[in-house]
Formats: sequence, C-alpha cells, structure tokens
Amino acid sequence: MEAGQSAPHINADRLLGHLEQLATFGRGPGGTNRVAYSEADRQARAQVIQWMQAAGLDVEIDAAANIVGRRPGREPDRPPLVIGSHIDTVPNGGNYDGTVGSLGAIEVAQTLHEQGIVLRHPLEVVIFQNEEGGLIGSRAWIGKLPPEELDHVSHSGKTIREGIRFLGGDPDRLDEVIRKPGDIAAYLELHIEQGPVLYEEQIDIGVVEGIVGIRWWRVTWEGTANHAGTTPMDRRRDALLAAARFIQAVNRIVTSEPGRQVGTVGQIEAYPGAPNVIPGRVVCSLELRDLDDAKIQRLYAAIEEEARAIAQESGVAVRFEPINVNKPAPTDPRVRDVIEAAAQDLGLSTKRMPSGAGHDAQDMAQLGPTGMIFIPSVDGISHSPKEYSRPEDIANGANVLLHALLRLDEAPWVR
Amino acid sequence: MEAGQSAPHINADRLLGHLEQLATFGRGPGGTNRVAYSEADRQARAQVIQWMQAAGLDVEIDAAANIVGRRPGREPDRPPLVIGSHIDTVPNGGNYDGTVGSLGAIEVAQTLHEQGIVLRHPLEVVIFQNEEGGLIGSRAWIGKLPPEELDHVSHSGKTIREGIRFLGGDPDRLDEVIRKPGDIAAYLELHIEQGPVLYEEQIDIGVVEGIVGIRWWRVTWEGTANHAGTTPMDRRRDALLAAARFIQAVNRIVTSEPGRQVGTVGQIEAYPGAPNVIPGRVVCSLELRDLDDAKIQRLYAAIEEEARAIAQESGVAVRFEPINVNKPAPTDPRVRDVIEAAAQDLGLSTKRMPSGAGHDAQDMAQLGPTGMIFIPSVDGISHSPKEYSRPEDIANGANVLLHALLRLDEAPWVR
Repeated sequence: MEAGQSAPHINADRLLGHLEQLATFGRGPGGTNRVAYSEADRQARAQVIQWMQAAGLDVEIDAAANIVGRRPGREPDRPPLVIGSHIDTVPNGGNYDGTVGSLGAIEVAQTLHEQGIVLRHPLEVVIFQNEEGGLIGSRAWIGKLPPEELDHVSHSGKTIREGIRFLGGDPDRLDEVIRKPGDIAAYLELHIEQGPVLYEEQIDIGVVEGIVGIRWWRVTWEGTANHAGTTPMDRRRDALLAAARFIQAVNRIVTSEPGRQVGTVGQIEAYPGAPNVIPGRVVCSLELRDLDDAKIQRLYAAIEEEARAIAQESGVAVRFEPINVNKPAPTDPRVRDVIEAAAQDLGLSTKRMPSGAGHDAQDMAQLGPTGMIFIPSVDGISHSPKEYSRPEDIANGANVLLHALLRLDEAPWVR
Repeated sequence: MEAGQSAPHINADRLLGHLEQLATFGRGPGGTNRVAYSEADRQARAQVIQWMQAAGLDVEIDAAANIVGRRPGREPDRPPLVIGSHIDTVPNGGNYDGTVGSLGAIEVAQTLHEQGIVLRHPLEVVIFQNEEGGLIGSRAWIGKLPPEELDHVSHSGKTIREGIRFLGGDPDRLDEVIRKPGDIAAYLELHIEQGPVLYEEQIDIGVVEGIVGIRWWRVTWEGTANHAGTTPMDRRRDALLAAARFIQAVNRIVTSEPGRQVGTVGQIEAYPGAPNVIPGRVVCSLELRDLDDAKIQRLYAAIEEEARAIAQESGVAVRFEPINVNKPAPTDPRVRDVIEAAAQDLGLSTKRMPSGAGHDAQDMAQLGPTGMIFIPSVDGISHSPKEYSRPEDIANGANVLLHALLRLDEAPWVR
C-alpha cells in the first residue's frame, strides 16, 4: 500500500451475509452439524470455493483436501503470506468458530481485489479441512499426519483417508503438500475467542500469545455385563460406576492446583447400554490442556494413578490409549506487535492472551512467523448452537486481519 | 398319593437327554438363538409337543400360541394345577433359562403317567410363548396383552400378531384364553436362579418369595455445551460431571440400607459427545428393583432429592421421566411352605429369596396361589451362552416340582 493512501476497509455487510449463508449448511434443530467429511461439509466447501473465485483467487483443492486460493504478489519469488481458518464444526456446533476467520480471510482477499491492491508477497487464503477432528489439514502441511491416523474414523463415520477422498483430495499424495520452515512469509488467523475474557472485559481484539498444548486419551473400563435384576449390588463389576468415579477424579485433580489448566471428559459410551444390564464396558475420553506441557504430563500421571486405584477397588480393568498430542505453540512476538499496532490504528482496544483452544495456527507456527487475532464471544460460549459474536466485532476482526496483513507485507523482517 | 406309598422320583437321565436335545434347536457359534417366532422356536415347540404327548398329555396350542398339555384329575370339577415355563431364548442366549422348568414340568407329567398316579386336580403343563419379549403368552392369559402391543416387532422380525399366527395361534381370538382369578388351583414354576446366590452359598433350592417390582426412569441432565479449552473449570456447567455424581449417589443410596434391592444405571449418552466439548446434555437410565414397591419409592425419593442437590450445586437442571413400572408379585406364603417342605423331605437345603428377574409366574400370581422353585446357576451367569446349571441341580429341581405338586394336590386350602 502506498503511503498516504486512505486506509482500506472490508465490506462488513457482505462478510456478514456470507456468514449467514454458510450457516445454512448443516443447520439442524440441535445446532450446526457440519462435521468434516459430511455431506454438509462438502456442500459448504463448494460454496466457499465460489466466494474465493469471486474474490479473484486461483483456487485449488490440495492433496490433503485443504482449499487454497492464490493471488499473485509484486515480488513472485517471495514465499506467500497465508491467511485462513476452517469451516468444519463439532457435532451440534455453532456458526462462528472457524467460519469468521475463513470468510474474514476471503473478505480480505476480495477487498484487495476490488481496491486493486497488489501485495509484495503472493497471498494464499487457506481453508483447512477437519480442524475439529485434530487439525488434520494443517498437520498434513507440516508433515505430521502419520499414515496410521488416516484409518481413524471421524465423526462423519468415514475414516480420514475416506474423508480426504470424499472432499477431492488424494491421501496417497500427501507428501506433495508438505511445507518446510521458511516456505511461508507469515501466517495470520482471525478467530473467535471461544471464551469469556474479551466479552466480559469489553475489549475489542485479543492478541494471542500462544496456543495451549492438548493431550487426549481414550480410556476403556472393562467390568462384567450382567443381569441388573439378579446380580446383587456387592457382586457387581460395574464399568460405569468406576467410570463415574473417574470423571469426578479428573475434575478434582485438575482443579487441585492454581492455573489455567483444564481437564475434560466429553465422550462416554456404555455397553451393552440397556437399562436392565449392568454396563460391562465403558469407553470415555480424557483431554488435558495447558500452556505448559510438563504440567499436562504431571496432571495426567496423577489422574492415571487415581484411575488404577479406582479400577482395583471396583474390580474392573482400565486402559489408557493416547490418541492425540498437540504441544504448546507460542506465536511470534513480532507478529503480536504488528496485530496490536494495526488494531490500535483502527481505534480498537487490545489484550494479550493465551488461546485455550487448539488452532491450525499452532501448526503454521512451525512454518513461519504466526499470529492470531481474537474477537469476543458473547458469554464465552462456543461449540454450541448458542455461540455468537457481534457483527461489529466480526467487522473489527476482519479489518485488523486486513491491516495486519498489509503491515506484514511491508515489514522488513518478513522474508 | 396314598400315605405310605414310596416317594416317586423323576427320571433324571431322560430329563437331561431332553434338555440336550432341545439345545440343538437354534444352536449357533454365539449361543442359542431361539427367539420367539423364529423357525428354531417353531421346530423346538414341535419337539416339545411330541414329548408332552409321550407323557400322556392331551396337547393343544391355544389362541395365544401357548402350548397346553392336559391330564385329567380324580375330581374333574376342580380347577387345574398348572406347571410350566417357556422355551424361547434371548438372542445369543443359553440352554437353561426357561427350558429347565418347561422340560422339568413335562418330566413330572411323564412320571405321574408312568407311575399311574392320578391327582385329585386336573393337571395342565403350559409352555408359555415369548417370555423373553415381555411375558407375552402369560399376559394373554390374564387379559393384559393390549391390542396395540400385537403390532410390536419382536426379535424375530415378526410382529407379535404375526408370531402368534406363525406358531399356530389366532390373534383374533385372544379373548378365549383369558382366565379369571380362581380359574387355577395353583401355579408352580421351576427356573434357574440367573444370579449367583444359590451357587455361591451352595444351597440346593431357592424358594422364591416373589418377583421384584421394577421401576425405570429416564434421567436428563441439562448443562451448557462449551469449548473444553476456553471455558475455565470454575465457569463450567458440565452435565456429565453432574451425571457422574448421580451414578455414584444411586449406588450409595441403594446400598445404604440392608436388603436385596438393586439400582442400576445401565444406559448413558452424553451430547454432543466430543472429547473437546463439555457435555451440555446427558441422558441416562435409572432402574430400581425390590420386592417391596414402597421401598422402591422410598429409594427413588432419596435419589431424586440427591439428584436435585447435585444439579443445584453443578449449575445444571435435572428431569426424571418414568418409563416403565412392573409392580412386585409376591408368591403365596402357603405355596412357599409347601415347596420348602417338599425340598426338605428330599434332603435338600433351601433359601428364601426374591427373583430379581421377571417370570411368567408373576402373571399367574393373579390367577391363583403361585410359587417358584429356583436351582443354582453356575457363577450366576444367564442370558449368555455360558449359562449353566449342574445335572444334579436340575434333577433336584424337577423332583421338588413333583413333590410340591403332590403336596398342593392334597392341601386342604387349595380349591
């Protein structure tokens, strides 16, 4: 951008209109069901591709099934500046998580297109696939999607391998999407906070300091399924009773020391699952998060020890299987400064804060300087149909994304 | 039986041979599949009818498709003494539940036949159809099989109406099988315990005090689904954490007073059910059983009160919906005494106990004095291919059935 040129702004009405339209894909009585690899996901992606093309982007579905829209820069040898997010949802989710950043990035591209602004750097707008199922698309980019994980069954019922094919990728050619550190000039992601801090403190923009680490286990309890009428209380090996003690213990251990760590049991299945049969088998999830991986591992050790004690006392067996590990990922301090300056220039208040949620940005941080822009979530609600961000906050976020991008494009330290 | 006549005994080898033969109908790798109205069920019934005829019984398939074999008494105006059970199984079931009592009753009839013993009362041996699907045959006898239930699809894939036709009954003439209180002199049913008590305590014969009542509720916990990473521990309204406390409370309350009551949470679903989402909604079952309905209701009141306290402390809402009620069906105290005396005369140890499972006897208890005879189940296992009762226990049970029948036939209080 030339000095003295009036500051460009995104078209808020168009962005909000696109958000509304995207919300119709997977809409249901219990919330938005647009889990990765569902029919709703596929149809929503087709819509998003149209918007990207309308924004003048050259769109490709890469082998990992990420959608990548490219816009050339004035200096074609530079690595690209990358902006984007995801549009898949959790089961019964909302309409802002991922979509604000995805459609915000497309809106930024369209603004550049309409205003004839050509950056020094090539620009890439990326819609990562299956963020909610474990950052699958962005992990493919950094070469950390192991072949065995392709066989995991996702919420859609499809394996990840089947899902990649379903969305137009090619799971046999994942090698082609891998990028090395330095292959991008920088990465910026706009996202809703998904927590209550900005909303409650009435701050416009969160400047993210880093993304917490996440570890996730599958926990299996094996007791004995038996007739609920003929098996006396003291003769039972009730897997659900043991799992219930475990759920309590997770909460107690996680809250037993100060800090922002969280621990969650979000998934549970009891087998055979009839009111008149004592559950013989229970499978549940365990998820722990903190900015400090050592703390996560210390909490896990305490939880596992307690689980073994519960199992022994209950006459059941317990087994932990690690399913996923995301290490904590700090953002680049220089990118934080750029975001903060862009926001302040636009007259917006800012706060530096960690991200309790995982984001594709944590993978991108391995490829180049990365930053994240948060906007307030009303009442801190997310992963729920009640998830909501105000129109003015969405517009602010997209404008900060645009201005931070323009500043990064000119920053001398950016490759 | 004349005083001083030597005590008759059943032919154990023949009974065990019949049990082995019956086990071939529906035998499969995962257990015995002889669900009501299956081809295996129909063929097994044809075999059973042959054995009944060989025992000198006059056999009829009644309109409800129950098999009834009749033997005249010396005093034809008396109502019949009825003995029997069922031969249908659960899917992947065993070879003792129902069949021991059915073939035991036929063996008793054959023993009377061979030894030329003519009772004062007419005798009926009944093989009730579809016990496992909800006591269908015996409920037809007491007029509690509502027309709409005939449309229910059973495990066989057939509706009950179709199943009754398939087995040779006539669902349009169910009125004809209805009996009134007093229409039977007494009912006796031999059955495996399906629980561990007799086996572990090494007791020969259980004298059943009654069939427990069962009340079953759906319990719904409503919290707030929220992002597991961004929602601090102290801001959560975790429906699963509350339900876990509830599951513990059910166990604590049910075991807090002496007695043989049982309480089970066998079913649980957490929504949305993802590892990275705090469960906003949990639906679980609650089932309580006891011989005393007042005790069930007292336990329920305590559980509900505790659930409301848990809900309040957890910031969630809880709702109880009654789904099903089976009132307790006590056996006749005079019949219990008769069974006990018969067993003791045969040198067998006895224990008075409730039946935690439902049986056709609970319906028959509405028509006349009813009793049940239990024999041990090895390791308490039932509804499983591992279900097993020892040959000597089976023979003992059939002999107690025979002797209790002979005593009832002479008892002055029996009509």
